[in-house]
Amino acid sequence: MTVATEYGTSNVADRLWEGVQPEAARRLLVSGLGLFAAKGFHGTTTRDIAARARMSPAALYVHYRTKEDLLFQISRIAHEAALAAITPETSGPGDPVRQLKAAVAAFTAWHAHHHTAARVAQYELAALEPAHFRVVAAVRLTIERNFRTMIERGVAAGEFEVSDVPATALAILSLAIDLARWYKPGSRHSPEELSELYAALALRMVRSGG
Amino acid sequence: MTVATEYGTSNVADRLWEGVQPEAARRLLVSGLGLFAAKGFHGTTTRDIAARARMSPAALYVHYRTKEDLLFQISRIAHEAALAAITPETSGPGDPVRQLKAAVAAFTAWHAHHHTAARVAQYELAALEPAHFRVVAAVRLTIERNFRTMIERGVAAGEFEVSDVPATALAILSLAIDLARWYKPGSRHSPEELSELYAALALRMVRSGG
Repeated sequence: MTVATEYGTSNVADRLWEGVQPEAARRLLVSGLGLFAAKGFHGTTTRDIAARARMSPAALYVHYRTKEDLLFQISRIAHEAALAAITPETSGPGDPVRQLKAAVAAFTAWHAHHHTAARVAQYELAALEPAHFRVVAAVRLTIERNFRTMIERGVAAGEFEVSDVPATALAILSLAIDLARWYKPGSRHSPEELSELYAALALRMVRSGG
Repeated sequence: MTVATEYGTSNVADRLWEGVQPEAARRLLVSGLGLFAAKGFHGTTTRDIAARARMSPAALYVHYRTKEDLLFQISRIAHEAALAAITPETSGPGDPVRQLKAAVAAFTAWHAHHHTAARVAQYELAALEPAHFRVVAAVRLTIERNFRTMIERGVAAGEFEVSDVPATALAILSLAIDLARWYKPGSRHSPEELSELYAALALRMVRSGG
C-alpha cells in the first residue's frame, strides 16, 4: 500500500479540522465548508449547513455567532495550516535554494490536499467582516513575507537573479494557490508529483541565467 | 495622457461585451457579471440582476432563458476573448521563444484587464449545464493545447527543456488565471508590467539550463 493511498487526500483534509471542538462544532464546520465550496458563501444558508450536518437550525448558533463566523473559522484555520506547512522550511538560516524548494513543495502539497478548504479560504475573503479579514490578512502577509525573504536571501547569496522580488513571490504563490481552482483527487498528477514539479519550476523562476 | 489612462481597465473590460445586442441584453449581462463576481452565481437571483440593470424582473427572460443561460453567455464570451487574445501569437510557425513570450504576455494582460469576467468564468464553471459546459470546455482545451504546442515546438527546436509539458503548460496558465483572484485596478503593478514580468518568468520555466 502506497503512502498516497494510506493517507488519501480526504483523510489528510479531514485532519485539518481535528482541533475544532466539540464534535458538533466540527461537523457544522465541515458541512459549511462543503456547501461554501459548492454554492458559495452567499448561496448557502445557515439552515442548509445545519441540515447537512443533520442538526437543527438553532444548533448552529450554539457554536457560531453567525454564518460569517463559521466562514472565519474555516478561513483562519486553513490559512494558519498553510503557514504552518511552510514554517519548518522557512524558519532560520540555511541554503536559500534548498529552503525555497522545500517551501514551494510543502505549499503546493498543502493546496492539493486541501483544495476544498483553500478554495473557500481564498475565494470568500470578501465575505469576511473587517475584524476577521484583518486576522486572516496578517497570516497571508506572513506567508508572502516568508517567500520574499527566501528570494531576497538567495539574491544576496548570488544564487538567484530576480528583477522584482514581491511580484515574483506572488507568482510563485499563484502556482500553488491556483490548485484550489483546478485540482481534483484523481487529477493526472498526485499532490506529491505536483509538489516536485512546482518546486523545480519555482527554482527556475528565480535562478540566474534565465 | 498615457495609453494606460486612455484605455483604462474599465473601458477595456466594457468593450468585451460590445457584441451583445440589443443594449438591454448587454445591460443585463453586465449586471449579472457584477453580482456573480460579488456574491457568486448561487447567491444571486434573476430579480437582483434585473434590479441592478434597472429593469423589471420579467424583462430578463426576454433575453435569457434562465440565470444559467446568462452565466453561459458571460463564460463563453470571456473564454473566446481570452483565446482570441493569444491567437495572433500562437498561430502559424515562428520562433517558439518569441511566440510563448508574446502569448503569455497577451494572456496575462487579458486576465488583468478582465479580472472580473475571468473570475466569474473560472470560478462558476460548475454552475454551467452540461451542454454549456462542453462548449466552454472546448475553448479551454484549445487554449491549453496552444500552450502545449508552443512548449513542444521549443523543446523540438532545442530551446526549451521541459520534463512534463502538460503540467508545465497548466502552471504557466495558472500565473495569468490567478490574477482573477488577486488583481485589482490600483494593484502595485499595471497589467502591462505584469505581462512583461510573467512572460519572462514563463520563459525561465521552460528554458534549458535551470
